[in-house]
Amino acid sequence: MRNIRLNLEYDGTEFQGWQKQPGARTVQGTLETAIQIVCRHPADVVGCARTDAGVHALGYVASFRTESDMPASRLSLALNGCLPEDIAIVTAEEVPADFHARFSARSRRYLYRVTESPTAVWRRFAFHSHHALDVDRMAKAAAHLVGEHDFTSFTPVTNEANKICRVIELEVVRDGSHILIAVEATRFVHHMVRAMAGTLMEVGRGRTEPEQVAEALRKKDRRAAGPTAAAHGLTLLRVRYHSDPGPELPGTGKP
Amino acid sequence: MRNIRLNLEYDGTEFQGWQKQPGARTVQGTLETAIQIVCRHPADVVGCARTDAGVHALGYVASFRTESDMPASRLSLALNGCLPEDIAIVTAEEVPADFHARFSARSRRYLYRVTESPTAVWRRFAFHSHHALDVDRMAKAAAHLVGEHDFTSFTPVTNEANKICRVIELEVVRDGSHILIAVEATRFVHHMVRAMAGTLMEVGRGRTEPEQVAEALRKKDRRAAGPTAAAHGLTLLRVRYHSDPGPELPGTGKP
Repeated sequence: MRNIRLNLEYDGTEFQGWQKQPGARTVQGTLETAIQIVCRHPADVVGCARTDAGVHALGYVASFRTESDMPASRLSLALNGCLPEDIAIVTAEEVPADFHARFSARSRRYLYRVTESPTAVWRRFAFHSHHALDVDRMAKAAAHLVGEHDFTSFTPVTNEANKICRVIELEVVRDGSHILIAVEATRFVHHMVRAMAGTLMEVGRGRTEPEQVAEALRKKDRRAAGPTAAAHGLTLLRVRYHSDPGPELPGTGKP
Repeated sequence: MRNIRLNLEYDGTEFQGWQKQPGARTVQGTLETAIQIVCRHPADVVGCARTDAGVHALGYVASFRTESDMPASRLSLALNGCLPEDIAIVTAEEVPADFHARFSARSRRYLYRVTESPTAVWRRFAFHSHHALDVDRMAKAAAHLVGEHDFTSFTPVTNEANKICRVIELEVVRDGSHILIAVEATRFVHHMVRAMAGTLMEVGRGRTEPEQVAEALRKKDRRAAGPTAAAHGLTLLRVRYHSDPGPELPGTGKP
């Protein structure tokens, strides 16, 4: 059995998220159908993250095992031939048997894109804020979220036991008329980036103070933080693996 | 009569270009319909450029005259309410009577975006080259096109008499896996940016030498330059006006 890593992009607009569900158009389900056609056997595709409906990905990583002996570069061409235009395999490569797109990841990086003006070109990939946003205030608030914290206030009440995540970086920068919120963490709880973006936008428009974000974290209560921002502004940018070059992140030793 | 300037964006994918034509979905025709609803009189909208079918715009400028006394900021909201999602009015402002979106322009800037890998997120806004491109060779070739030249080799045979354009800047840079070709000129002849992009990609993949681009210009024959690149990779970025702050460009005095 060979283990194949796929680096792929998707436009999440018309998908019900990554994870396959009966009767829904999902990225995982669509990929598995294409792999079955090309490799001539059913395959279970593992993804690096379970993105929500409407969320996009530029540097998504998936892996699957196959008995096909097709060279990885041909596999990539063949899969693109079977996939709809809103998923694209960027590259495919054979990887060691112990590589797992989800469990081998040491961090994931997301971008939340906001525009302050109406947009046609970016309408699928950016959230339009009807309020002007103060980026300095947002950056000050963001600083409180960096580090290892219990993110209970930034995720819906679920049976997910561990709400502790280590945020490695959280940047808020202006790029022309766009505001970019980029966050890298070892793991994310459900809706966490969208809840962070919604909370930072509340600070940016002046409805709450930057310091209240630290208070929201401490309260461990979803109602203490801001609303969950719309899915379509969010894009998974990249995943880092333990096998990637570069130093290990402190405190994130290999599993 | 008030003179209104609209700053707008459009996703050109589903338009038959800017210029109105009977029975075709065009940006100009769509705007005129929205203005007629909001201002309650027919209006002739002047555009800064006649973009082809499939070409996009981020910093498009249009102007029209109206008897409506609606404040410009309300006009912008009202128009967005009547427009489809692939056109967005970014801002509207009242301008002096002598402002004309086309004739008052002193330069226009376009971006041609190329990806070397399959893409889902950028599929509407970037051309996917199936060949690896050498950006240094492309930049060397581009240098021959800067300045005032007769661009007969970069436009189809038409009855457009004046083929002389002054290219102020033509940059070719790599941005991750994308190659960006940005060009600013006082005027453009039909298909000129796409013919430049097609020619530069021929150089980038090694089919012709950078010096042959100078030769292609001199020949004043469309067959001497490369093919016209696909429309969807092209976006109008911005227009500069004589009335904008900053020095006049040499040799482009007010009309």
